[in-house]
Amino acid sequence: MNDPGWARAAKSNRALGYIDVLLRGAGQVMFQNHPLAGLLFLLGIGYGSAVGGNLAVAGGAALGLLASTLTATWLRVDTASLKSGLYGYNGLLVGIALPTFLEVDARLWTLIVLGSSVSTIAFMAVANVLKTWEGPALTFPFVLVTWVLLLGAYALADISPGSMSAPTLPTHVTPETAAVPTSAKFWLDGILTGVSQVFLIGNPVTGLVLVLALATSSVWAATLALLGSGAALVCAVAFGAQTASMQGGLYGFSPVLTAIALGCTFYKPSPRVLIFSMLGVIATVFAQASLDVAVQPFGVPTLTAPFVLVTWLFLLAKGDLAPVPHDELSRKTFGVS
Amino acid sequence: MNDPGWARAAKSNRALGYIDVLLRGAGQVMFQNHPLAGLLFLLGIGYGSAVGGNLAVAGGAALGLLASTLTATWLRVDTASLKSGLYGYNGLLVGIALPTFLEVDARLWTLIVLGSSVSTIAFMAVANVLKTWEGPALTFPFVLVTWVLLLGAYALADISPGSMSAPTLPTHVTPETAAVPTSAKFWLDGILTGVSQVFLIGNPVTGLVLVLALATSSVWAATLALLGSGAALVCAVAFGAQTASMQGGLYGFSPVLTAIALGCTFYKPSPRVLIFSMLGVIATVFAQASLDVAVQPFGVPTLTAPFVLVTWLFLLAKGDLAPVPHDELSRKTFGVS
Amino acid sequence: MNDPGWARAAKSNRALGYIDVLLRGAGQVMFQNHPLAGLLFLLGIGYGSAVGGNLAVAGGAALGLLASTLTATWLRVDTASLKSGLYGYNGLLVGIALPTFLEVDARLWTLIVLGSSVSTIAFMAVANVLKTWEGPALTFPFVLVTWVLLLGAYALADISPGSMSAPTLPTHVTPETAAVPTSAKFWLDGILTGVSQVFLIGNPVTGLVLVLALATSSVWAATLALLGSGAALVCAVAFGAQTASMQGGLYGFSPVLTAIALGCTFYKPSPRVLIFSMLGVIATVFAQASLDVAVQPFGVPTLTAPFVLVTWLFLLAKGDLAPVPHDELSRKTFGVS
Repeated sequence: MNDPGWARAAKSNRALGYIDVLLRGAGQVMFQNHPLAGLLFLLGIGYGSAVGGNLAVAGGAALGLLASTLTATWLRVDTASLKSGLYGYNGLLVGIALPTFLEVDARLWTLIVLGSSVSTIAFMAVANVLKTWEGPALTFPFVLVTWVLLLGAYALADISPGSMSAPTLPTHVTPETAAVPTSAKFWLDGILTGVSQVFLIGNPVTGLVLVLALATSSVWAATLALLGSGAALVCAVAFGAQTASMQGGLYGFSPVLTAIALGCTFYKPSPRVLIFSMLGVIATVFAQASLDVAVQPFGVPTLTAPFVLVTWLFLLAKGDLAPVPHDELSRKTFGVS
Repeated sequence: MNDPGWARAAKSNRALGYIDVLLRGAGQVMFQNHPLAGLLFLLGIGYGSAVGGNLAVAGGAALGLLASTLTATWLRVDTASLKSGLYGYNGLLVGIALPTFLEVDARLWTLIVLGSSVSTIAFMAVANVLKTWEGPALTFPFVLVTWVLLLGAYALADISPGSMSAPTLPTHVTPETAAVPTSAKFWLDGILTGVSQVFLIGNPVTGLVLVLALATSSVWAATLALLGSGAALVCAVAFGAQTASMQGGLYGFSPVLTAIALGCTFYKPSPRVLIFSMLGVIATVFAQASLDVAVQPFGVPTLTAPFVLVTWLFLLAKGDLAPVPHDELSRKTFGVS
Repeated sequence: MNDPGWARAAKSNRALGYIDVLLRGAGQVMFQNHPLAGLLFLLGIGYGSAVGGNLAVAGGAALGLLASTLTATWLRVDTASLKSGLYGYNGLLVGIALPTFLEVDARLWTLIVLGSSVSTIAFMAVANVLKTWEGPALTFPFVLVTWVLLLGAYALADISPGSMSAPTLPTHVTPETAAVPTSAKFWLDGILTGVSQVFLIGNPVTGLVLVLALATSSVWAATLALLGSGAALVCAVAFGAQTASMQGGLYGFSPVLTAIALGCTFYKPSPRVLIFSMLGVIATVFAQASLDVAVQPFGVPTLTAPFVLVTWLFLLAKGDLAPVPHDELSRKTFGVS
């Protein structure tokens, strides 16, 4: 679909053009401005959603993608960004997260439309602020809107927290008696499920589809997804993360995004960039552990917050700009200087 | 008091001029640079404070307004902002919130003076930062300073958390057995009390006084206050908020501010702006539910944080600025590119 | 070591030059770009660490300082900032905090290297962002990285939270039956331990060494350290802080840093600046009480977050810049205006 034929068709036909925008929106969840990758991502979501027995996840993804993109159209955003799918990926993730964590009923679809629309506004705001330092919004709009709705569910009788862990005070995890898992199956499943959890789906086949989808758009992205998920798993094992979380891919999805973002999206691949990205991946594993603990009293999931936090730090760091020295400020200050 | 006579008097007499500044400071809580509106707001506070049996609230409002404005004068802030009352409204709200949530004793008045003074410094800092994107500080300085003092009360033996809910882990609210309230009284009381809670007062008469006060300055603002409070109430009912909270106006005050801010203060009224503002109002209702849950482990109220969060998002969103694309950054980066 | 001889030696010999950079990095914890002060700080840490029976603290300080500075060198940061030690102080503090709060084992040294390296990247990011308003990063990179690692420890079986308080819901402290302490020893110990706690060490002798070290670099800084610690203690006593916390210097270290930062580092000493700084010191005491409460559900210490929060507010406040008025925004906004 990145062939000239599709491009021509999308240009000449308005409906196909909007479908192109939506597919690119799906692709942007993993930074791919690429309609075929987006289509394959959607297929992977559909498959995982069907296997997981919660088709509302696939429906929510489609609805969220559409609602957030339509909101952007209504708000007359800049055309270039709209066409590259930047106004779709946050809404898509909102549409996946809500049926994953809340009970599915009629009100949920209203929530998805509302949340996805507001995710577009949040995206515009965050992008506008971060533009000052050439920083991208990443999936923060999704995290913000979804946290608000999931937390709010506890206070609203007609929205039911479905599969969220109840709020609790953190305790130190007890070491598991079983030996560190070393089977090839553990590693393969863990790595692929880590990729699929980018879309909140715990399914190695979906993970494989996503890696292949990435490869149609960028071999670097596919490689870094696997490398990020693998390195994260090694790090999680080394410091004693819970086996169930690792097998479920919960230590992998944020590092996967960090690896693709730092390793080949916002920086150009090179040996130095690879080292830098892997440091980012390791930092993301600790951010994951940390945020898992921090959200416990609130009973909500971390979503992709660990990725956002670490990738912002690693992207906003710029060595060619001297920081403000520990020295008297040159500026005139309101009568206290 | 917006007649030429008062304006002339305020200009020629220094004491009257400072009173004009203070009254405008009161007016700015609801975005009105208007001394008569400010005076009527103060009367509404005084009435609600007397009826509620806690006159310290009215005293705190006056003291906070004065202390924060005097601090601004001492810090030689820009005259235009000072004269329009921008350095008064956060202090006024600090002065209302402390006697509302803490036990009233001699130390409390010291706290009000300290907190209001620091709210001026916080306002200058937040305004300075947000100016970069033409964003206003809103009531964030009030929220920040008050949260610090209310939280701190738990660690300091000589400050007593008076009417704050004890810290607790969130649980999902149980559906209420009573039918959804449909009486005219429920709606009228809820809407007007929602307005009065902008000043932390749960009193429909105060709400009515505030709406009339708004109308002396701006009919749009008065209309949007009622519309915001009403739409918020409908939304809260639709998703099963607790009846007591709705009747107490606790789902209304932040949406009221969102509606006035988006609908006629920072944007010019129009059908599109009205739809945009109402989306903001609905988002504020969910932000209210969400923050109500998020603050539970800390035992402090949300104050106007839901309004600040949503209004910032909706004001900072700008469509004419393209976000940073998911693409290699053009900049030279510290040896990793 | 600030004599011309050392400066010459540091310039001509590469190894000595790097040692000079490291010592300045130690000095920058208290804003001193001064190798001798840095050396004396390290001696004070070594002494307190030996007396406290946890030599890993001194080792961690050295390792963290080295790792963060080497990371900066690898990232080719700007030379002037590197040479003034700005890339060392956060790593040094990470290296002190981890052995203080976590159990010391082989993995801990890996964590220190990782955390210190990432603290350099966090410093670059935060400094880059705050540069927009001439704001310094302060110790926020240290706080952020350390919070992430300490929180993460609860989720990772192979990292043991050593001396951290278990997560708990806040309750109002009960007034102590003992009279307010008035002995000279209470005040002297409290003030000096407040200074030593800047380096997470509760030892009045270390505090004295630090004050003397400051004096070799700046008599103002030494004076303000004592003044800040003293004023904070008076304020803490006045509002009923817990005696044990006060004696342990836990109400002093953040105010000490606030006093030095505002009083003589970023502003030029003057009577007005002194008043402004002391208001900052008092605000920091309440921020300390507040954050002590806010971190309770998470079971981590506040570190220097109270200092960072208040000093940012007091530095970013600028009176000569008018804030955005409560008025229609001039900008063209995405089709809603």
